[in-house]
Amino acid sequence: MKRGVLIVLSGPSGVGKGTVRKALFEEPDIDFQYSISMTTRQPRTGEVDGEDYFFVTREQFEDAIKHNEVLEYAQYVGNYYGTPKAYIEKTLAAGKDVLLEIDVQGALQVKEKMPEGAYIFLTPPNLRSLKTRLIGRGTENLDVINRRVQTAASEIRMMKNYDYAVVNDEVAAAVDRIKDIIKIERLRVERVLPEYISMIEEFEKL
Amino acid sequence: MKRGVLIVLSGPSGVGKGTVRKALFEEPDIDFQYSISMTTRQPRTGEVDGEDYFFVTREQFEDAIKHNEVLEYAQYVGNYYGTPKAYIEKTLAAGKDVLLEIDVQGALQVKEKMPEGAYIFLTPPNLRSLKTRLIGRGTENLDVINRRVQTAASEIRMMKNYDYAVVNDEVAAAVDRIKDIIKIERLRVERVLPEYISMIEEFEKL
Repeated sequence: MKRGVLIVLSGPSGVGKGTVRKALFEEPDIDFQYSISMTTRQPRTGEVDGEDYFFVTREQFEDAIKHNEVLEYAQYVGNYYGTPKAYIEKTLAAGKDVLLEIDVQGALQVKEKMPEGAYIFLTPPNLRSLKTRLIGRGTENLDVINRRVQTAASEIRMMKNYDYAVVNDEVAAAVDRIKDIIKIERLRVERVLPEYISMIEEFEKL
Repeated sequence: MKRGVLIVLSGPSGVGKGTVRKALFEEPDIDFQYSISMTTRQPRTGEVDGEDYFFVTREQFEDAIKHNEVLEYAQYVGNYYGTPKAYIEKTLAAGKDVLLEIDVQGALQVKEKMPEGAYIFLTPPNLRSLKTRLIGRGTENLDVINRRVQTAASEIRMMKNYDYAVVNDEVAAAVDRIKDIIKIERLRVERVLPEYISMIEEFEKL
């Protein structure tokens, strides 16, 4: 069984990761599994355990951290959010690709543990357009926006830890680029070499 | 000016590198330069200097080797054949991609000098089909064919020095994969990071 590819989609806050991820899963020819997060927060109406999140208690989450069962985690408004390792491992081992959409801090934590993934950094076409987009949302004041653009600038510097940079100039174009990356990642030598080596060994036995 | 990408197409003898390369250049949406070799052999009727080959004297070739102006070279039936560095450098600096089709030994020499290239290893679907293909050519006896298949097996082990493995099961499919690789190589972070860093620096000056 050929192992699946872990695809990590990340990028600065406000760049449109969630939108691109949703558009990606609406593509008819996409066949990968979305990585389900684990959280200690209460399920909201309609949320299903094991679909939207794995809902766990604080004790269970801290236990998972202690036993190295989370790839990355953070606390937000008093709750833990994280990526459980077993689910991803099981899916990859079954030969299915996994997509993980995650912020820059989380992606760097994951990379330490699973460097073999394909790390994609979604970027704004430029910082000016990121600022315009944040202003357009109308949900934050200019001070907050300026701080977020500064953060984006420093996060773009973190791009060096990734494999690919995909500009989110247009969602459909970004989705196409990501689909191409996934296709091509399967041709990378480090992923296919073991198969070829066994082919040679088979042949030499004849 | 954004630097072009050096694409190195290589693989075992008999795998069909030349056929794939020719098919690639017949694609309407391909825009890269074929790397022209340098040789000391006499031009054949119809061959044009600077198009088919750069035709040079033995003294000129040895001078180029001495001055580190060839990326790789070999001797064959008393003549030198090699890849001149200046032509590739100039083309890449002008922002144009360059394709170099070359045997495994040559590719490894080039990689030492230009590791930033995209190294593509063309493989037979399996060693049995390589053998069938060589027998089908009808130009060599079985001893020679068996030796070539053994060489192919040991060359496949050299795949580890490459970035991508492309199966040449069908020429059109191999061409499509190579076109996708070239597209995706342009998204690799090591190629685009400098642009983004200057974008941030521009923005922070405002």
